[in-house]
Amino acid sequence: MECMQELRERAAELADLHHVMALLQWDQEVMLPRRAAPERAEQIATMSGIVHRKEVDPRLGELLAAATEQSEGLEVVERALVRKMQRDFDHSTKLPESFVVEFASLTSRALPVWVEARRRDDFASFAPCLAQIVAMSRRQADFLGYAAEPYDALLDLYEEGLTTARVGACFGAIREPLAAMLAGLAGDAAPGAAMPLAEPFRVEEQIRFADRLLAMIGFDFNRGRQDRSAHPFSTGLGGNDQRVTNRYRADSMEFIFSALHEGGHALYEQGVAPELARTPLASGVSLGIHESQSRLWENIIGRSLPFWHHCFGELVQAFPAQFGSMAMEEFVARINMVHPGPIRVEADEVSYNLHVLIRFELEKALLDGDLAVADLPAAWNQRYRELLGVKVGSDAQGVLQDIHWAHGSFGYFPTYTLGNLAAAQIWRAYCRFDPDHDATLARGDFGKVRGWLTEQIYGHGSVYPPGELLLRVTGEELQARYFLDYLGNKFGA
Amino acid sequence: MECMQELRERAAELADLHHVMALLQWDQEVMLPRRAAPERAEQIATMSGIVHRKEVDPRLGELLAAATEQSEGLEVVERALVRKMQRDFDHSTKLPESFVVEFASLTSRALPVWVEARRRDDFASFAPCLAQIVAMSRRQADFLGYAAEPYDALLDLYEEGLTTARVGACFGAIREPLAAMLAGLAGDAAPGAAMPLAEPFRVEEQIRFADRLLAMIGFDFNRGRQDRSAHPFSTGLGGNDQRVTNRYRADSMEFIFSALHEGGHALYEQGVAPELARTPLASGVSLGIHESQSRLWENIIGRSLPFWHHCFGELVQAFPAQFGSMAMEEFVARINMVHPGPIRVEADEVSYNLHVLIRFELEKALLDGDLAVADLPAAWNQRYRELLGVKVGSDAQGVLQDIHWAHGSFGYFPTYTLGNLAAAQIWRAYCRFDPDHDATLARGDFGKVRGWLTEQIYGHGSVYPPGELLLRVTGEELQARYFLDYLGNKFGA
Repeated sequence: MECMQELRERAAELADLHHVMALLQWDQEVMLPRRAAPERAEQIATMSGIVHRKEVDPRLGELLAAATEQSEGLEVVERALVRKMQRDFDHSTKLPESFVVEFASLTSRALPVWVEARRRDDFASFAPCLAQIVAMSRRQADFLGYAAEPYDALLDLYEEGLTTARVGACFGAIREPLAAMLAGLAGDAAPGAAMPLAEPFRVEEQIRFADRLLAMIGFDFNRGRQDRSAHPFSTGLGGNDQRVTNRYRADSMEFIFSALHEGGHALYEQGVAPELARTPLASGVSLGIHESQSRLWENIIGRSLPFWHHCFGELVQAFPAQFGSMAMEEFVARINMVHPGPIRVEADEVSYNLHVLIRFELEKALLDGDLAVADLPAAWNQRYRELLGVKVGSDAQGVLQDIHWAHGSFGYFPTYTLGNLAAAQIWRAYCRFDPDHDATLARGDFGKVRGWLTEQIYGHGSVYPPGELLLRVTGEELQARYFLDYLGNKFGA
Repeated sequence: MECMQELRERAAELADLHHVMALLQWDQEVMLPRRAAPERAEQIATMSGIVHRKEVDPRLGELLAAATEQSEGLEVVERALVRKMQRDFDHSTKLPESFVVEFASLTSRALPVWVEARRRDDFASFAPCLAQIVAMSRRQADFLGYAAEPYDALLDLYEEGLTTARVGACFGAIREPLAAMLAGLAGDAAPGAAMPLAEPFRVEEQIRFADRLLAMIGFDFNRGRQDRSAHPFSTGLGGNDQRVTNRYRADSMEFIFSALHEGGHALYEQGVAPELARTPLASGVSLGIHESQSRLWENIIGRSLPFWHHCFGELVQAFPAQFGSMAMEEFVARINMVHPGPIRVEADEVSYNLHVLIRFELEKALLDGDLAVADLPAAWNQRYRELLGVKVGSDAQGVLQDIHWAHGSFGYFPTYTLGNLAAAQIWRAYCRFDPDHDATLARGDFGKVRGWLTEQIYGHGSVYPPGELLLRVTGEELQARYFLDYLGNKFGA
């Protein structure tokens, strides 16, 4: 089929351009000189316009129509390619170019404003940007269209087929069990008392150990790098160029779990089959499945006793002043302590999904016009008091803590909870494959885990839609009970 | 004029895209994971094609024709804009898109091959790439056209109006005087004995001091950054984003003069008037004038006694083990020692232009087909023996030392010598403006020098063609005698 050849060429060009955009954004957050922010915003806007024009090219629509008509004769991968390109084409053609350029320019300008607002704990200076982003997100939903409510349109951007109703149901299934568990556990330790350190961490040592952790779980530094940014993230600049970032604080072990989390995302991308390169299939299939991999490495593996059985010696060697006099079991107990706090990325596994629930409710209210941006900090702080029993001390530690809204990523947060549920379900499937999983981790054979994940998930990229992939891997649709079982086993003991 | 408005919009879009290309290249040399080189080459090729199609858009030609017709009514800057865009349009339309994409892809692939060949001292592994680059450079010259010989077409790319004949004449004017000076001085010290160090330099300290030097001469770190790469370079990712790179070796002071050299380039770009932003005028006018500024800061200022009168204390503080027991005068004598060696970027001011002369003759011979790539190392080594009395110990220290050919930049080297001549002529003009120039430098008032240069040169960007600019600043066309006078004063004493 000739149209497939031309489709593949167009896919390759678009893949290159998306990677160029990813570089512009990575560099903006990791390298950009302070005063260059406005001109970088112009560059991103110019590129966005060019990419958008290619994405909505009517010729692409014709090719897709021709390929779809003959799709019965196609192999699995080619059929998936047509399906994915059609989905992207539909999303793109619904957004006018002027809107895409304006939105890209807005979020690009908003990013340094958010960084500065957080630094100065000054929500008001970010509020006008955020109000514009909310308004544009609402317009985005209207352009994209939705069956039940505007928020559905945004959810579908990140997780194919996800709806507000389904997200509500997920939270419904875990809300009460989590609240009950939290009530039973939260008295264990006073917040902040979790990890008194004899000495502050030295940044150079943190960087070295974070690199070591990534290498240990199988991150390939010949095909990626780790740098510093205000907020840890992971991005792909190409099949052989996965970039993760981390942040380092003298008084926090957060960098360990950020490395494992972002490393989990990067392992997924590094594990995609090379044959899929320069197609839109050459990437993780959805944010939810992606998050299942980051949380699997960060929490299910990275906070387990067997994992630290293997790594604790190296940790003590890297930070003798901090951990030299601590038993491994005490360390593992401490990194699993349940003590609700204001920061999502530092949250324990029991309270984490309540952080997400708050964001879900608030961004939906913002989008529906039920909440004004000016009232957001108060609403945020109130929910933290009610749901988590946490008094938020400042907007920097509260509503300004996450980068997502500055990025214009409304509808993104719920995929974190989907990821936690899927991670537990996938790990259950791994444990059936490897009944000696604890011994596997304890001897540091992470290659065995990675091998299974690559075969089951990573290698397929976006060939199978997220629901279908989960069914293939676990034999079931997404269930909340594996996550609740996992927490019960861990924290019930 | 409506066509001017549309021209300005197109200029802004092209400026953004050129800066995106600059980022792709900067990142390739500073950040890129090893195995990502091939995919980066594809990304650069894809972008090159897109940029090229915009550069050769017939509508752009129509707008330029309309603007040129009415150019008498234009202000100086607008007339310059039309002139510069016309020159760029002419260059671009002469090169077919397929050629541009192929050349960009080739040089992008060649870069890591060169890095590896230099590391392993293995010219043969780079030779096939170089042969392809020579062939494509020759085709480039044929596409561009020339009056006298192919090399003229490539020279004009970097220095408007420059010809092989004129370059030959320049070298003619300095060849004998330099040879005579070298013969009289080279016996002063045995090569390699120039700077015996008590202790190797620590890289972290080198980086800190290089940053300090840049800050001292007025490099604005809010509008730029300094990183590490295999070969020092300077590039602009936007008017407020100048990036210089440096390299650091435990046994070499090279980093000091690389910082001043690349810093000189960056000061030029940081000094361009903000009103010129997002036009092709918002950059230094030619490589020769650019090099005059890097060499002025590196050599005329950076190797002068008054400069070190101001800086030597900080140097000693940064490197007490190396310089603690050395007198400032001895240090300055050592950094000005004349001792011909194999490496261009480490060459003293007397022999430097002979290094350039060798490259000029060899690349012209390659281009004309008078020299085969396989014979290049032997020809290189022979000329070094004859002209500089230097025995080249390895290809890594010889023919593989420079990045330029891997970049496909034939015709670039001669601008280094033009820059040296112009630097001396411009410094003479500065000394007329500031008769107390030695005292100015000795008290560290580099802002005074930078202010004059900004007013005379930097601020104008590419508004005046290089020859006209030099005439405005110095009252004369380019002369070799100021450079010879400068060397005579310095080394005759």
